[in-house]
Amino acid sequence: MPSYDDSNIFAKILKGEIPSETLFEDDVAIAIMDVMPQSKGHCLVIPKAPSRNILDAFDETLQAVMPLVARLARAAKAAFSADGVRVAQFNEEPAGQTVFHLHFHVIPIYEGVELKRHAFGDVPMDTIKEHAEAIRAELAKG
Amino acid sequence: MPSYDDSNIFAKILKGEIPSETLFEDDVAIAIMDVMPQSKGHCLVIPKAPSRNILDAFDETLQAVMPLVARLARAAKAAFSADGVRVAQFNEEPAGQTVFHLHFHVIPIYEGVELKRHAFGDVPMDTIKEHAEAIRAELAKG
Repeated sequence: MPSYDDSNIFAKILKGEIPSETLFEDDVAIAIMDVMPQSKGHCLVIPKAPSRNILDAFDETLQAVMPLVARLARAAKAAFSADGVRVAQFNEEPAGQTVFHLHFHVIPIYEGVELKRHAFGDVPMDTIKEHAEAIRAELAKG
Repeated sequence: MPSYDDSNIFAKILKGEIPSETLFEDDVAIAIMDVMPQSKGHCLVIPKAPSRNILDAFDETLQAVMPLVARLARAAKAAFSADGVRVAQFNEEPAGQTVFHLHFHVIPIYEGVELKRHAFGDVPMDTIKEHAEAIRAELAKG
Protein backbone atom coordinates (compact mmCIF):
# COMPACT_ATOMS: atom_id res chain seq x y z
CA MET A 1 0.00 0.00 0.00
CA PRO A 2 1.40 3.43 -0.93
CA SER A 3 2.16 5.77 1.94
CA TYR A 4 0.12 8.85 2.77
CA ASP A 5 0.80 11.83 0.50
CA ASP A 6 -0.21 15.20 1.93
CA SER A 7 -0.61 16.87 -1.47
CA ASN A 8 -4.23 15.66 -1.59
CA ILE A 9 -7.05 18.21 -1.57
CA PHE A 10 -8.35 17.33 1.91
CA ALA A 11 -4.90 17.80 3.44
CA LYS A 12 -4.84 21.22 1.80
CA ILE A 13 -8.29 22.03 3.19
CA LEU A 14 -7.14 20.91 6.65
CA LYS A 15 -4.10 23.21 6.35
CA GLY A 16 -6.36 26.09 5.26
CA GLU A 17 -4.69 26.31 1.87
CA ILE A 18 -7.95 25.66 0.02
CA PRO A 19 -11.36 26.99 1.11
CA SER A 20 -14.23 24.69 2.01
CA GLU A 21 -17.79 25.06 3.22
CA THR A 22 -17.16 23.95 6.80
CA LEU A 23 -19.96 22.53 8.97
CA PHE A 24 -17.96 21.99 12.10
CA GLU A 25 -14.42 21.57 13.26
CA ASP A 26 -12.90 20.17 16.43
CA ASP A 27 -9.61 18.57 17.45
CA VAL A 28 -10.54 15.32 15.73
CA ALA A 29 -12.04 16.24 12.39
CA ILE A 30 -13.68 18.74 10.13
CA ALA A 31 -17.01 18.29 8.41
CA ILE A 32 -17.52 20.01 5.08
CA MET A 33 -19.98 20.04 2.20
CA ASP A 34 -19.17 17.77 -0.75
CA VAL A 35 -18.93 20.24 -3.64
CA MET A 36 -20.03 17.54 -6.10
CA PRO A 37 -22.99 16.27 -4.09
CA GLN A 38 -24.76 13.03 -4.93
CA SER A 39 -27.87 14.38 -3.18
CA LYS A 40 -29.06 17.52 -1.40
CA GLY A 41 -26.97 17.87 1.76
CA HIS A 42 -24.19 15.42 0.84
CA CYS A 43 -21.36 16.17 3.25
CA LEU A 44 -18.09 14.69 4.47
CA VAL A 45 -16.33 14.02 7.75
CA ILE A 46 -12.54 14.23 7.44
CA PRO A 47 -10.37 13.22 10.39
CA LYS A 48 -7.37 15.45 10.94
CA ALA A 49 -5.02 12.52 11.57
CA PRO A 50 -3.41 11.54 8.28
CA SER A 51 -4.20 8.19 6.69
CA ARG A 52 -4.98 7.21 3.09
CA ASN A 53 -8.15 5.41 4.06
CA ILE A 54 -9.55 2.91 6.58
CA LEU A 55 -6.92 0.33 5.64
CA ASP A 56 -4.06 2.31 7.21
CA ALA A 57 -6.02 4.35 9.78
CA PHE A 58 -5.25 4.08 13.47
CA ASP A 59 -8.01 2.65 15.67
CA GLU A 60 -7.93 5.84 17.75
CA THR A 61 -8.78 7.92 14.69
CA LEU A 62 -11.71 5.71 13.77
CA GLN A 63 -13.01 5.69 17.34
CA ALA A 64 -12.83 9.45 17.61
CA VAL A 65 -14.43 10.19 14.27
CA MET A 66 -17.48 7.91 14.23
CA PRO A 67 -19.58 9.85 16.76
CA LEU A 68 -19.04 12.90 14.53
CA VAL A 69 -20.23 10.93 11.50
CA ALA A 70 -23.37 9.94 13.42
CA ARG A 71 -23.93 13.50 14.59
CA LEU A 72 -23.65 14.78 11.03
CA ALA A 73 -25.95 12.03 9.70
CA ARG A 74 -28.64 13.07 12.18
CA ALA A 75 -28.22 16.77 11.41
CA ALA A 76 -28.24 16.31 7.63
CA LYS A 77 -31.33 14.10 7.77
CA ALA A 78 -33.13 16.59 9.98
CA ALA A 79 -32.05 19.67 7.99
CA PHE A 80 -33.75 18.45 4.82
CA SER A 81 -36.36 16.06 6.25
CA ALA A 82 -34.57 13.35 4.29
CA ASP A 83 -36.07 9.85 4.22
CA GLY A 84 -32.81 8.16 5.09
CA VAL A 85 -29.05 8.56 5.13
CA ARG A 86 -26.22 6.53 3.70
CA VAL A 87 -22.78 6.51 5.25
CA ALA A 88 -20.14 5.42 2.75
CA GLN A 89 -16.39 5.13 2.94
CA PHE A 90 -14.31 4.08 -0.06
CA ASN A 91 -10.90 2.45 0.01
CA GLU A 92 -8.69 2.57 -3.07
CA GLU A 93 -9.54 3.80 -6.53
CA PRO A 94 -11.44 0.73 -7.81
CA ALA A 95 -13.78 1.17 -4.83
CA GLY A 96 -14.49 4.76 -5.84
CA GLN A 97 -11.94 6.60 -3.69
CA THR A 98 -10.89 9.83 -5.40
CA VAL A 99 -9.08 11.65 -2.56
CA PHE A 100 -6.48 9.71 -0.61
CA HIS A 101 -7.14 11.06 2.85
CA LEU A 102 -9.61 9.08 4.97
CA HIS A 103 -13.14 10.50 4.77
CA PHE A 104 -16.71 9.43 5.37
CA HIS A 105 -19.56 10.39 3.06
CA VAL A 106 -22.87 11.31 4.69
CA ILE A 107 -25.50 11.19 1.96
CA PRO A 108 -29.12 12.12 2.68
CA ILE A 109 -31.56 9.93 0.75
CA TYR A 110 -34.91 11.10 -0.60
CA GLU A 111 -37.62 8.61 -1.55
CA GLY A 112 -37.88 8.35 -5.33
CA VAL A 113 -34.80 10.49 -6.02
CA GLU A 114 -31.84 8.75 -7.66
CA LEU A 115 -28.38 9.54 -6.34
CA LYS A 116 -26.08 11.38 -8.69
CA ARG A 117 -22.91 9.58 -9.64
CA HIS A 118 -20.07 9.87 -7.12
CA ALA A 119 -17.89 12.92 -7.85
CA PHE A 120 -20.18 13.97 -10.72
CA GLY A 121 -22.67 16.19 -8.88
CA ASP A 122 -23.03 19.68 -10.36
CA VAL A 123 -24.71 22.17 -8.01
CA PRO A 124 -24.14 25.95 -7.82
CA MET A 125 -21.96 27.01 -4.90
CA ASP A 126 -24.72 29.33 -3.62
CA THR A 127 -27.00 26.32 -3.25
CA ILE A 128 -24.33 24.37 -1.44
CA LYS A 129 -23.85 27.31 0.93
CA GLU A 130 -27.59 27.35 1.65
CA HIS A 131 -27.52 23.62 2.39
CA ALA A 132 -24.52 24.11 4.66
CA GLU A 133 -26.44 26.77 6.57
CA ALA A 134 -29.36 24.37 7.10
CA ILE A 135 -27.04 21.65 8.45
CA ARG A 136 -25.21 24.11 10.72
CA ALA A 137 -28.58 25.22 12.13
CA GLU A 138 -29.38 21.58 13.00
CA LEU A 139 -25.94 21.01 14.52
CA ALA A 140 -26.41 24.10 16.68
CA LYS A 141 -29.48 22.48 18.24
CA GLY A 142 -26.98 20.04 19.78
CA MET B 1 -38.13 7.37 14.73
CA PRO B 2 -39.56 3.93 15.63
CA SER B 3 -37.95 2.19 18.60
CA TYR B 4 -35.69 -0.83 18.29
CA ASP B 5 -37.53 -4.10 17.70
CA ASP B 6 -35.57 -7.24 18.60
CA SER B 7 -37.51 -9.49 16.23
CA ASN B 8 -35.07 -8.57 13.43
CA ILE B 9 -32.85 -11.28 11.94
CA PHE B 10 -29.56 -9.90 13.33
CA ALA B 11 -30.97 -9.84 16.86
CA LYS B 12 -31.90 -13.50 16.35
CA ILE B 13 -28.41 -14.29 15.09
CA LEU B 14 -26.91 -12.50 18.11
CA LYS B 15 -29.13 -14.60 20.40
CA GLY B 16 -28.06 -17.77 18.58
CA GLU B 17 -31.59 -18.48 17.39
CA ILE B 18 -30.57 -18.38 13.72
CA PRO B 19 -27.28 -19.74 12.36
CA SER B 20 -24.73 -17.54 10.61
CA GLU B 21 -21.31 -17.93 9.07
CA THR B 22 -19.38 -16.18 11.83
CA LEU B 23 -15.97 -14.61 11.16
CA PHE B 24 -15.27 -13.38 14.65
CA GLU B 25 -17.06 -12.52 17.84
CA ASP B 26 -16.07 -10.49 20.87
CA ASP B 27 -17.85 -8.50 23.58
CA VAL B 28 -18.59 -5.66 21.17
CA ALA B 29 -19.74 -7.27 17.95
CA ILE B 30 -19.96 -10.23 15.65
CA ALA B 31 -18.79 -10.31 12.07
CA ILE B 32 -20.61 -12.62 9.68
CA MET B 33 -20.81 -13.32 5.97
CA ASP B 34 -23.59 -11.56 4.07
CA VAL B 35 -25.58 -14.46 2.63
CA MET B 36 -26.69 -12.31 -0.33
CA PRO B 37 -23.25 -10.94 -1.18
CA GLN B 38 -22.79 -8.03 -3.55
CA SER B 39 -19.26 -9.27 -4.26
CA LYS B 40 -16.94 -12.12 -3.27
CA GLY B 41 -16.25 -11.78 0.45
CA HIS B 42 -19.04 -9.32 1.31
CA CYS B 43 -19.37 -9.44 5.09
CA LEU B 44 -20.99 -7.54 7.93
CA VAL B 45 -20.03 -6.21 11.34
CA ILE B 46 -22.95 -6.18 13.76
CA PRO B 47 -22.55 -4.52 17.16
CA LYS B 48 -24.17 -6.41 20.01
CA ALA B 49 -25.64 -3.26 21.56
CA PRO B 50 -29.15 -2.75 20.21
CA SER B 51 -29.91 0.20 17.95
CA ARG B 52 -31.90 0.48 14.71
CA ASN B 53 -29.08 2.20 12.89
CA ILE B 54 -26.50 4.98 13.26
CA LEU B 55 -29.23 7.55 13.96
CA ASP B 56 -30.08 6.08 17.38
CA ALA B 57 -26.73 4.37 18.18
CA PHE B 58 -24.76 5.35 21.26
CA ASP B 59 -21.37 6.94 20.64
CA GLU B 60 -19.76 4.18 22.73
CA THR B 61 -21.11 1.54 20.34
CA LEU B 62 -19.78 3.35 17.29
CA GLN B 63 -16.40 3.91 18.89
CA ALA B 64 -16.07 0.27 19.86
CA VAL B 65 -17.17 -1.17 16.55
CA MET B 66 -15.16 0.86 14.02
CA PRO B 67 -11.77 -0.74 14.69
CA LEU B 68 -13.47 -4.08 14.02
CA VAL B 69 -14.85 -2.77 10.73
CA ALA B 70 -11.34 -1.69 9.74
CA ARG B 71 -9.88 -5.04 10.80
CA LEU B 72 -12.45 -6.90 8.70
CA ALA B 73 -11.90 -4.58 5.72
CA ARG B 74 -8.17 -5.35 5.78
CA ALA B 75 -8.76 -9.09 6.17
CA ALA B 76 -11.39 -9.31 3.43
CA LYS B 77 -9.23 -7.32 1.01
CA ALA B 78 -6.21 -9.52 1.74
CA ALA B 79 -8.15 -12.80 1.62
CA PHE B 80 -9.20 -12.29 -1.99
CA SER B 81 -6.52 -9.86 -3.20
CA ALA B 82 -9.35 -7.42 -3.82
CA ASP B 83 -8.57 -4.11 -5.52
CA GLY B 84 -10.44 -2.07 -2.94
CA VAL B 85 -13.08 -2.19 -0.23
CA ARG B 86 -16.25 -0.24 0.36
CA VAL B 87 -17.66 0.30 3.81
CA ALA B 88 -21.37 1.11 3.69
CA GLN B 89 -23.94 1.70 6.36
CA PHE B 90 -27.59 2.36 5.51
CA ASN B 91 -30.11 4.22 7.63
CA GLU B 92 -33.82 3.71 7.01
CA GLU B 93 -35.52 1.82 4.22
CA PRO B 94 -35.25 4.50 1.48
CA ALA B 95 -31.47 4.40 2.03
CA GLY B 96 -31.38 0.65 1.46
CA GLN B 97 -31.61 -0.58 5.05
CA THR B 98 -33.31 -3.98 5.14
CA VAL B 99 -32.54 -5.16 8.69
CA PHE B 100 -33.20 -2.72 11.51
CA HIS B 101 -30.24 -3.50 13.74
CA LEU B 102 -27.14 -1.34 13.17
CA HIS B 103 -24.65 -3.03 10.84
CA PHE B 104 -21.72 -2.13 8.61
CA HIS B 105 -21.21 -3.66 5.19
CA VAL B 106 -17.64 -4.53 4.20
CA ILE B 107 -17.64 -5.07 0.44
CA PRO B 108 -14.47 -6.11 -1.39
CA ILE B 109 -14.21 -4.47 -4.82
CA TYR B 110 -12.65 -6.08 -7.88
CA GLU B 111 -11.53 -4.01 -10.83
CA GLY B 112 -13.98 -4.42 -13.72
CA VAL B 113 -16.51 -6.44 -11.70
CA GLU B 114 -19.90 -4.79 -11.11
CA LEU B 115 -21.42 -5.10 -7.66
CA LYS B 116 -24.58 -7.15 -7.39
CA ARG B 117 -27.65 -5.30 -6.17
CA HIS B 118 -27.93 -4.95 -2.40
CA ALA B 119 -29.78 -7.93 -0.87
CA PHE B 120 -30.03 -9.63 -4.29
CA GLY B 121 -26.81 -11.65 -4.33
CA ASP B 122 -27.30 -15.37 -5.01
CA VAL B 123 -24.30 -17.52 -4.09
CA PRO B 124 -24.31 -21.16 -2.90
CA MET B 125 -23.79 -21.55 0.84
CA ASP B 126 -20.76 -23.80 0.22
CA THR B 127 -19.07 -20.95 -1.61
CA ILE B 128 -19.88 -18.51 1.18
CA LYS B 129 -18.39 -20.96 3.69
CA GLU B 130 -15.18 -21.13 1.61
CA HIS B 131 -14.99 -17.34 1.52
CA ALA B 132 -15.54 -17.21 5.28
CA GLU B 133 -12.66 -19.62 5.75
CA ALA B 134 -10.37 -17.39 3.69
CA ILE B 135 -11.29 -14.32 5.75
CA ARG B 136 -10.87 -16.21 9.04
CA ALA B 137 -7.40 -17.29 7.91
CA GLU B 138 -6.47 -13.63 7.33
CA LEU B 139 -7.94 -12.54 10.67
CA ALA B 140 -5.88 -15.24 12.39
CA LYS B 141 -2.72 -13.57 11.10
CA GLY B 142 -3.65 -10.72 13.47
